[in-house]
Amino acid sequence: MVKLNHHYQKLSGSYLFTEIEKRLAALKRNKKTLINLGVGDFTRPLFPSIVSALSEAAKEMGEATSFRGYGPCEGYLFLRQAIADNDYKNIEISADEIFISDGANCDIANLQEIFAVENRVAIPDPTYPVYLDSNVMAGRTRHLLKTGTYGGITYLPCSEETDFQPLPPMGHVDLIYLCSPNNPTGVGMERSLLKRWVDYAREHEAVILFDGAYEAYIQSPSVPHSIYEIEGAKEVAIEVRSFSKSAGFTGLRCSYTVIPHQLKIRDAGGVHSLHGLWKRRHDTKFNGVAYPVQKAAAALYTSAGKRELKASIASFAERTHVMREGLQKLGYNVYGGIDAPYIWCKTPKQMKSWEFFDYLLGEAQITTVPGRGFGPSGEGFVRFSCFADPKHIAEALARLKKLR
Amino acid sequence: MVKLNHHYQKLSGSYLFTEIEKRLAALKRNKKTLINLGVGDFTRPLFPSIVSALSEAAKEMGEATSFRGYGPCEGYLFLRQAIADNDYKNIEISADEIFISDGANCDIANLQEIFAVENRVAIPDPTYPVYLDSNVMAGRTRHLLKTGTYGGITYLPCSEETDFQPLPPMGHVDLIYLCSPNNPTGVGMERSLLKRWVDYAREHEAVILFDGAYEAYIQSPSVPHSIYEIEGAKEVAIEVRSFSKSAGFTGLRCSYTVIPHQLKIRDAGGVHSLHGLWKRRHDTKFNGVAYPVQKAAAALYTSAGKRELKASIASFAERTHVMREGLQKLGYNVYGGIDAPYIWCKTPKQMKSWEFFDYLLGEAQITTVPGRGFGPSGEGFVRFSCFADPKHIAEALARLKKLR
Repeated sequence: MVKLNHHYQKLSGSYLFTEIEKRLAALKRNKKTLINLGVGDFTRPLFPSIVSALSEAAKEMGEATSFRGYGPCEGYLFLRQAIADNDYKNIEISADEIFISDGANCDIANLQEIFAVENRVAIPDPTYPVYLDSNVMAGRTRHLLKTGTYGGITYLPCSEETDFQPLPPMGHVDLIYLCSPNNPTGVGMERSLLKRWVDYAREHEAVILFDGAYEAYIQSPSVPHSIYEIEGAKEVAIEVRSFSKSAGFTGLRCSYTVIPHQLKIRDAGGVHSLHGLWKRRHDTKFNGVAYPVQKAAAALYTSAGKRELKASIASFAERTHVMREGLQKLGYNVYGGIDAPYIWCKTPKQMKSWEFFDYLLGEAQITTVPGRGFGPSGEGFVRFSCFADPKHIAEALARLKKLR
Repeated sequence: MVKLNHHYQKLSGSYLFTEIEKRLAALKRNKKTLINLGVGDFTRPLFPSIVSALSEAAKEMGEATSFRGYGPCEGYLFLRQAIADNDYKNIEISADEIFISDGANCDIANLQEIFAVENRVAIPDPTYPVYLDSNVMAGRTRHLLKTGTYGGITYLPCSEETDFQPLPPMGHVDLIYLCSPNNPTGVGMERSLLKRWVDYAREHEAVILFDGAYEAYIQSPSVPHSIYEIEGAKEVAIEVRSFSKSAGFTGLRCSYTVIPHQLKIRDAGGVHSLHGLWKRRHDTKFNGVAYPVQKAAAALYTSAGKRELKASIASFAERTHVMREGLQKLGYNVYGGIDAPYIWCKTPKQMKSWEFFDYLLGEAQITTVPGRGFGPSGEGFVRFSCFADPKHIAEALARLKKLR
């Protein structure tokens, strides 16, 4: 009889956003329109340079002389080179160390595969749920405890006490997920802390999976854009970045993962390059990203694309600023929102996360994401996403004002 | 210290096509141009209806009113419904049972994840390498033996003795990979044999992973287009299909997987729906296919798209027919090539596969794929892929004639 992967049974109920969708569907709407400050989806149309690149590539593929079938699994060199030349121009990452894929989500979920099940995993708490769930599915955890945590995982609490920063643990861990600027708290990691993490990883021969999906939003000079700005990081860290949140590729699907050649693991069988292992996985289980989508991503590195990207980031930064100031004026305690389009808002009157979520949804028809959905330390917070239209943000603040 | 997934070390050398690429790169070219009858990549430009759909979708995404961000992980309903209405019109598969993804390769490689490591796996021999390699990586095999087979796997020999059909084994297996029309042999499975397999799976409470990537090429009335044409198959089989080989999506990336709601597994923990498990995996580890690519796939179900697809299939079928007849006239023993664009050719003079591969490459500058690369029973064969231009096929036959 066929046997199932029993680790899936350990997963906690519905996936967070699926649960939110359910509550939205069940909501009896009143006259107000719903304002979505929940899921971090892009809301502006694709930049003109991206639309042109997509159409141009479609045309190319309709001609016998320029049709493209299978591309390299790791991505076209034109895109990998553009990334190396622009995003890593001062860090010396070569095109060959960059793998193009169809989403930071997928890469972050799949990277754990090249590591043994026995590794001890550390994740920030609260965290982007995929870090945890992909490890639950792979069998790297025990069961879900009544505390809301999984046995066998090291949680790195990001609370008011730690300034919402994940601190290196006292004990030993092997595989460390870091996200900066952080989703959901919107807080960027300081250079000095990131250095402590790189030092920890070197000392413990651990590997850091560094999620920089929101890198484009960084404004604080003290927050590094890449983990490779820290000396020695190339020997211990994999970095993942995405075009989703910077240029609105949530519906186009393109991201990249950097695995430096220096990143090597020594074991009884010899010295292994993580680059080689991931390449093997890519070659076997992935067939590359659509050519038109890679052309679209490459358009972001043209002068028009750079200009459009900059304007878009500025626009979202402004919305986040307005929301942040507005919430503060209304007396809310807010964090993040400077280096990311997310605001981490403490619930009033010691309400629980889901309670405040339901309250905002029911009374003001505003969707947020309950902090508890991101982990136990998220209890007592909700995440406001600021991708919404400026007039919706203004309207949301007006509704919140009426609730006081 | 971080520990690696040691199962990767069991993988046999380079991935087949990577090894071929290496030999091609090492080749000292003579005056003749290389004719690629190796990798099964599409060669005709994208159909006009696809190019229009891609451009139209790009334009839509450039407008604020029609921009699309995250889509449903399992795909847009417009595409799932078109598939259900057309590809499964007589079989009663609902749109809800169809998952859109970015490649049959990926789905075939990832589906094993929802099953326990302990399952006994059966694969055809020769086989598409991904069935085997993904299971090696997951730890479902022991080491590679001197025979070229992995311990712990049940091989289903497809040889001259079995008419290149995989027969149900005497013993028990849990997870069965079937591919019809088969890659690499190009042979389609007869209805009567497929029924034996469905009966076997029902008796053994096994699950069949049915790869129908080449379904569009089926010409023989005795070869089912879908495993669900067999009674009872919905309770034991998952079917994967692709737009890659039918409509040239190798560079666009789109495929789909069907998991009927009837497909349920009972264990100590209760009754589990494979549809639910795969949806959970999709929701967590995948973020859907690019909207323009899904619109492009949907265009194949318009009257223009259907007409273009039919003409394209006919064109490749004709090329395969010419190649097959030509090889036979030259005295080669050939199989397949009727229900698939692949011809399985016996090597002359008892040459080994790689020997004949090197011979054809060196003497006639023709690339094939050595049968041995697909498994031990592939020894003594090479695969000719017939996606090449008709004039290249004619030229290949002319060169082969000179070698006699």
